[in-house]
Amino acid sequence: MAKNAFYAQSGGVTAVINATACGLIETAKKYKKHINKVFAGKNGIIGALNEELIDTSLESRQAIAALRHTPAGAFGSCRFKLTPFEKDPSQYQRLMEVFAAHNIGYFFYNGGGDSQDTAYKVSQLGEKMGYPITCIGIPKTVDNDLPFTDNCPGFGSVAKYVAVSIREAAFDVASMAATSTKVFILEVMGRHAGWIAAAGGLAQENKNDAPHIILFPEIAFNREKFLKRVDECVKKFGYCAIVVSEGVKDAEGKFLSDAGLKDAFGHTQLGGVAPVIAELIKSSLGYKYHWAVADYLQRAARHIASKADVEQAYALGKAAIEFAIQGKNAVMPIIVRKSSKPYRWTIGEAKLKDVANVEKMMPRNFISKDGFSITETCRQYLQPLITGEDYPPYKNGLPQYVRLQNKLIPKKLKPKK
Amino acid sequence: MAKNAFYAQSGGVTAVINATACGLIETAKKYKKHINKVFAGKNGIIGALNEELIDTSLESRQAIAALRHTPAGAFGSCRFKLTPFEKDPSQYQRLMEVFAAHNIGYFFYNGGGDSQDTAYKVSQLGEKMGYPITCIGIPKTVDNDLPFTDNCPGFGSVAKYVAVSIREAAFDVASMAATSTKVFILEVMGRHAGWIAAAGGLAQENKNDAPHIILFPEIAFNREKFLKRVDECVKKFGYCAIVVSEGVKDAEGKFLSDAGLKDAFGHTQLGGVAPVIAELIKSSLGYKYHWAVADYLQRAARHIASKADVEQAYALGKAAIEFAIQGKNAVMPIIVRKSSKPYRWTIGEAKLKDVANVEKMMPRNFISKDGFSITETCRQYLQPLITGEDYPPYKNGLPQYVRLQNKLIPKKLKPKK
Repeated sequence: MAKNAFYAQSGGVTAVINATACGLIETAKKYKKHINKVFAGKNGIIGALNEELIDTSLESRQAIAALRHTPAGAFGSCRFKLTPFEKDPSQYQRLMEVFAAHNIGYFFYNGGGDSQDTAYKVSQLGEKMGYPITCIGIPKTVDNDLPFTDNCPGFGSVAKYVAVSIREAAFDVASMAATSTKVFILEVMGRHAGWIAAAGGLAQENKNDAPHIILFPEIAFNREKFLKRVDECVKKFGYCAIVVSEGVKDAEGKFLSDAGLKDAFGHTQLGGVAPVIAELIKSSLGYKYHWAVADYLQRAARHIASKADVEQAYALGKAAIEFAIQGKNAVMPIIVRKSSKPYRWTIGEAKLKDVANVEKMMPRNFISKDGFSITETCRQYLQPLITGEDYPPYKNGLPQYVRLQNKLIPKKLKPKK
Repeated sequence: MAKNAFYAQSGGVTAVINATACGLIETAKKYKKHINKVFAGKNGIIGALNEELIDTSLESRQAIAALRHTPAGAFGSCRFKLTPFEKDPSQYQRLMEVFAAHNIGYFFYNGGGDSQDTAYKVSQLGEKMGYPITCIGIPKTVDNDLPFTDNCPGFGSVAKYVAVSIREAAFDVASMAATSTKVFILEVMGRHAGWIAAAGGLAQENKNDAPHIILFPEIAFNREKFLKRVDECVKKFGYCAIVVSEGVKDAEGKFLSDAGLKDAFGHTQLGGVAPVIAELIKSSLGYKYHWAVADYLQRAARHIASKADVEQAYALGKAAIEFAIQGKNAVMPIIVRKSSKPYRWTIGEAKLKDVANVEKMMPRNFISKDGFSITETCRQYLQPLITGEDYPPYKNGLPQYVRLQNKLIPKKLKPKK
């Protein structure tokens, strides 16, 4: 009898992780001889630990198809790292029990670096623990920091959102600058790497276009140099549009967002970095400012998703099933870039043991010498990733995103301690 | 010989004010016998005072057509109020001199309440000052607070942006809530009226959908009641998605955003209200939060503009010319709603003297009794305004917005003192 598959979404969700789920579930249906049902973990791996398994076969074909255009994690995700096996094997044991109880022979884990590490461990431990299981990791992260793959699904859509947003806001500020706002600051995600902030640079088609300044976590913030540049931009262009990564740090490595803000009650204000930068400009240069913090809007913005990103996310879900059917194990399908102009890519593979716990940082040569913009090399890398639009269907002026039934299968085990 | 026309954009720009300019300029070309050229004020009315007049006839037909899908103010806008005539007539005198020097017989002023007041004054004073001129106001404001017109161009697109954004972010939070973020707060514009915040309510199709709480400037913030509701939502739905208007005030009428925040240097932090609300929730209920401040992104978001809004903006620009040709004066074309389901509308007119300095507030019966959501009446009003999509063209993954040449005509007068 064909074994069942377990699929889980892990870590911060994206505009296209459900497109991966869609690719995976639709492709699994073509291999009924090998894969009986796809069970999804309710809230990620926690669903496996709690034996809360969603039976995706109970969803309509239309509902599964609609995952392709629905942002966030349709089965729920989680921020949860398994306790290392050596320290306490009980969580891994529990996983195997649950997998055995439900005849699960395939483990698909859709996430970032930590998740690939977990998938790798499951692939190693399964045999040792008497329950061998096929383990395939599937890349996902807006942080774009997984190695080997050309890029990470979810990143391209955030990149597009940020580039579109700073272009639009810059048009606004340019209109107002004569008598009002002269500086606009958009804060974007990227606690450790500047990939997302860099994407803002794509909005700049000509030398004098916005954004005029990008602040990267890779470049220590230099107050004087920064203020000088802002002033130059305002004097030259009439305004200054800035993209700042949430992870910008000072020369001592301290986050600028931890600027010691206190609210009226004396609580430390865990605010964004945008208002800190804005206030610095106001108090030093006197320019009127506006600032925005995109936060979840950027990674949930399926309405402006990159078509390339959606296609790759789907293709990786499909490839995960095909890899499993081909008998591959402990691998992750990846995007391999064949050329940038035109963008051509194919699916390749990486070994989970090589992927686990390796972070791909942004190369220094992607950032200009002065530290305030992206280089042509960076642009050539990023450009294809935001290409193409893939609009969701609308009803009454709003995108129609699917909510699944998410019916759980009956439990067979005692609750875990 | 046909007279020239002067057109100016005034106040905060929108995603569709250029669509109005497009309608006006394209329509003027059909009435060459009456209107020779359309001159646009560089940076709004300031352009008239400085005799900086942009010759729109030098722009290509394609460039003018592209204004329909380009956000912000293509000719520049300004926040500038003329000094009252009684106090100092010199600005009005200067306007008439500039208009006379360039054979301008039509004055089109595209803006909110203040601008309509200016247009009205010009229509009154022209004759008194020996230079009669046809004055037509054209509505524009994301604040949606002009009287008579069904709605104000620019508002529908902000409304759509806010509804789409909170829907998407809520899907994200719902995915993460089991182990991470439980509360999400989106701050939107609306210093004095809750129209934009109310639009967030359109994302709620079913009773339990996000947003679960809307905070309006019209309703005094009650800390205990609010926290109780947040807690109820998290316990019932697993998470709580909130839309908050920047103009929310406490019972004493003080803005919550002026919460006495001080930065590390002791400067007052002119931050958003979203982080204040977030910190209140964290310190009182302990829930992990995320917050976003949309700021200019919301009013510049041409990529997700409402089709109804774009069409109305264009139609009002067109109507302004037609009114002038028909010999109307001191009026403003308005949107008249014929029915909500289906949405049918036509162009009507209002007298500038009736429009000037009247603010349309949101009716109390648009807000639920408990003050946290919109009513069915409100929904029926808002729904048609966000209907339809009107995507701009894209190249390399980015919307192609036009930048005009904005060539000034030669000056004929001495600079104003």
